[in-house]
Amino acid sequence: MFAVHLEQGRVAVIRRPRPRRPRGSALIRLICGGICNTDLELLRGYYGFRGTPGHEFAGQVIEADSANLTGKRVVGEINLPCGNCDWCRRGLGRHCPRRAVLGIVRHPGAFQEFFVLPEKNLHIVPGAVSTEHAVFTEPIAAACQILDQAPIPRGAPVAVLGDGKLGLLIAQVLHVHGARVRLFGRHKEKLAIAARAGAETVLAPKKLPAAAYDWVVEATGSAEGLRQAVAMARPRGTVVLKSTVAGALALDMAPVVVNEITLLGSRCGRFEPALKLLAGGKLRLDEMISDRFPLAQAPRAFARAVEPGALKVLLENGDSNK
Amino acid sequence: MFAVHLEQGRVAVIRRPRPRRPRGSALIRLICGGICNTDLELLRGYYGFRGTPGHEFAGQVIEADSANLTGKRVVGEINLPCGNCDWCRRGLGRHCPRRAVLGIVRHPGAFQEFFVLPEKNLHIVPGAVSTEHAVFTEPIAAACQILDQAPIPRGAPVAVLGDGKLGLLIAQVLHVHGARVRLFGRHKEKLAIAARAGAETVLAPKKLPAAAYDWVVEATGSAEGLRQAVAMARPRGTVVLKSTVAGALALDMAPVVVNEITLLGSRCGRFEPALKLLAGGKLRLDEMISDRFPLAQAPRAFARAVEPGALKVLLENGDSNK
Repeated sequence: MFAVHLEQGRVAVIRRPRPRRPRGSALIRLICGGICNTDLELLRGYYGFRGTPGHEFAGQVIEADSANLTGKRVVGEINLPCGNCDWCRRGLGRHCPRRAVLGIVRHPGAFQEFFVLPEKNLHIVPGAVSTEHAVFTEPIAAACQILDQAPIPRGAPVAVLGDGKLGLLIAQVLHVHGARVRLFGRHKEKLAIAARAGAETVLAPKKLPAAAYDWVVEATGSAEGLRQAVAMARPRGTVVLKSTVAGALALDMAPVVVNEITLLGSRCGRFEPALKLLAGGKLRLDEMISDRFPLAQAPRAFARAVEPGALKVLLENGDSNK
Repeated sequence: MFAVHLEQGRVAVIRRPRPRRPRGSALIRLICGGICNTDLELLRGYYGFRGTPGHEFAGQVIEADSANLTGKRVVGEINLPCGNCDWCRRGLGRHCPRRAVLGIVRHPGAFQEFFVLPEKNLHIVPGAVSTEHAVFTEPIAAACQILDQAPIPRGAPVAVLGDGKLGLLIAQVLHVHGARVRLFGRHKEKLAIAARAGAETVLAPKKLPAAAYDWVVEATGSAEGLRQAVAMARPRGTVVLKSTVAGALALDMAPVVVNEITLLGSRCGRFEPALKLLAGGKLRLDEMISDRFPLAQAPRAFARAVEPGALKVLLENGDSNK
């Protein structure tokens, strides 16, 4: 079968045997995968990664212990916790220190024709949700995680900084939640997607409003974005940090202390609310798909994904008989 | 009368007339003031300060609108809010954007023989509390503020980083609250004060425990302390930021996002819980007083306060007939 392979900043497609299915895991055939910014960071050497990436996917279960999974269209939670530690017992396996992570840490990813994932990680995709939309489950869950961590009231003004893939999903998720979302970005055509979804959008001016929001979500992935997010938060406000800016960045923490601002790190989320939102059909996702490539053309797909202006690039697995 | 005057990195004692008391304010005679790290930062040019500092004090009311204040021993909240804005209406005048701050922002401080402060800022010192201890009300209130913002359960392990004045008060306040405090510091004799007060203390080793605490309080005032505090927090843990490190510092925010850590800026607090704690008599404060100087010797007092190893330096106003 074909598998995408990242190594030393290069994307290749290699052939290798189908993986063996361990007990408790399902063998899944990829239908469609999504390239995420984390994949692009892995390509740049983040985590010293070498192997098959891919953690946004929709697939079909080929073989599993549970009969009710076989043949089903599924998405899967990306963290593989140990199951025995304190975190796992508290239901927070996403923070298990011994966890593997699909396509990121010690577990081959979904960008191959077949891969395995523990059955307990899988969620059956509701019939009303298209396969392409299902690929967005994982990043939508990451957006929903904000609401699991921060009690943003319905009707509350929220500034979202960054009109990339994650920023657009966050703006939409918070808008559906009922917040008064204002998305600040630098790309007219990207902002337009959020605007059509009902959010207010602002083509970021040079001078952003200072101390204006009780809730700010940082999704730019830049040091400058984080500084601006802190500056835009009102005293006692909360800045949700959604993007991992790798490496040290220069930040003046004095305003955080003086204005008693809360900086809230936020990462992965539960899949249930994401699938519920997807089934609700209120998110505009088709417009967020920049391109589709067959799995065998993964190098072209990654090259497209790093282009400025690109949104979600999908990898499709057309043929199941290899 | 005598007044301390800071300007361009120099401390002087000048003579000037007694201030006039505006309606609604009390004229207060300083009995005893405490030099705080913020005063030392003002001396270094923080806030572009020029004038009379001093915001930790105990004084006697000489003249006031309210008869029940006259003659009383008082301490005073340091923020002078506008009283009309949204913040003030929500009871958060400490964050009023138009506030003046005693001895820091647009309001002459307490390091002079007589000064004025709105009557509503004043709290009468309970009879059981000595004047020298009352001087600690403001920093104790800042320590108590942690408990107003963060629901630290009784019995919860808390790491406090930094054995300076604020760190020692925080360790004591959290210990009296019932938390299992472990104070990390670099000064044996300072740690000993917290140890005698009942806290566990650790002479900071080269390698601090990683991902070990749900609650960490940063009170070192250094960039390195902040980095260590983040590293010591468990996933989903909270790092309370109590010290304002002025200027940009290099910080890797990726662990904050990946481990979903909350960074909580925390500044001034309410005086009520601080006075209650003082009246309870469980804090060890006498040992935290390094030196006492007459007001007229303020330059010597400031020189002493910047010496390594110094804790609280007090300024006493001996004579009221000038």
